[in-house]
Amino acid sequence: MRISELARTSGVPVPTIKYYVREGLLAPGVKTGATQAVYDDHHVQRLRLIRALREGAGLSVERVGEIVRIIDAPLEPVTPTTLIVALGTALAALPPDVGVDGSADSDANDGAGDAISAQLIARVGLEVERGTPARRQLDRALRAVADAGLPTDAQRLDRYAAAMSDLAAAEIAEMPDEPGEMLAYAVLGTALYEPVLLALRRLAHEHHARRALGLAP
Amino acid sequence: MRISELARTSGVPVPTIKYYVREGLLAPGVKTGATQAVYDDHHVQRLRLIRALREGAGLSVERVGEIVRIIDAPLEPVTPTTLIVALGTALAALPPDVGVDGSADSDANDGAGDAISAQLIARVGLEVERGTPARRQLDRALRAVADAGLPTDAQRLDRYAAAMSDLAAAEIAEMPDEPGEMLAYAVLGTALYEPVLLALRRLAHEHHARRALGLAP
Repeated sequence: MRISELARTSGVPVPTIKYYVREGLLAPGVKTGATQAVYDDHHVQRLRLIRALREGAGLSVERVGEIVRIIDAPLEPVTPTTLIVALGTALAALPPDVGVDGSADSDANDGAGDAISAQLIARVGLEVERGTPARRQLDRALRAVADAGLPTDAQRLDRYAAAMSDLAAAEIAEMPDEPGEMLAYAVLGTALYEPVLLALRRLAHEHHARRALGLAP
Repeated sequence: MRISELARTSGVPVPTIKYYVREGLLAPGVKTGATQAVYDDHHVQRLRLIRALREGAGLSVERVGEIVRIIDAPLEPVTPTTLIVALGTALAALPPDVGVDGSADSDANDGAGDAISAQLIARVGLEVERGTPARRQLDRALRAVADAGLPTDAQRLDRYAAAMSDLAAAEIAEMPDEPGEMLAYAVLGTALYEPVLLALRRLAHEHHARRALGLAP
């Protein structure tokens, strides 16, 4: 298809498509003349991914560039280990930015959140890399909870962990096998279902608070 | 206590405390002389709340100001209805900013996410106000999921809704009765446990992906 049709199909304007090609987010079309090129379904798919990360997840063009380069990098050899590393690297490019492992995170309360999350991870038996970004994310989140004086008891945190583990198991069961598709599914699934979960939790709070206050049967 | 002790106890520097007083986030101390004032445990608690919202949830001083004004507003009369309204107003001040109901959200795909979320809410029996911000948040989040071509089937979405409802029910069961404390618990609990849940989901993904790829027993 010509670029005008690609724009119509994808909902991305022609100048934006050209910008993405210049920035290396989208492969150029196949030249068919001095000023013409043709595009195919791969371009439509890629624009869908870029749009989801830009508009759906609110990422910068630079951040989307990092992610698509990881998805496009040839994985040789394709082994479970190289796949897990590529998944980790792609997901680490998503917000929140938690810095690199061992960085000087000079928070005075460093210890509290970290000890609570280490105990939680051990109790529920999560097998993850020690330096994984999600681990630093959890440390930081639990530090904020502890600092605010909110409960961090095992009953509450284990309940959160069990609920997330059940959801994650079902999500991973639907993960595609082909490396590029697997990476795209992991990145998009992480970025785009997170707001769904949070919105549902807030709606459920309203539902249960209304009942607790006697406003609903 | 004197302001220097309040700073030590709360971990908030004296100039920042003075700034919060000027901005109306914190009540002034009780004057004991021309240049002296004393502070009590309420100030410590309030600084803890402000710090959690500023550093833990990353909110602006203006946003924190909106929230504390709602928490401080006398609720008269205290009825389930006025409490639910105050809870809704306080929570609406938290990100993400989803605009006001009926605003011109000129997204071409407006219909898709909205229909999916309306069906989901009806299926799982969530009783919420039609114009509640979390509802617009869900519409927007599901629109992004649908646009990206990710699954929005009932099985997956109902699983998310059920998990969030179970967690929310347990959280609401621990909600304090006193209006000011109830509002603080709702705002902090919403803002600070969200990052915990997301970090746990990402860790669980890594755990289950390792197993799916045969990297763990």
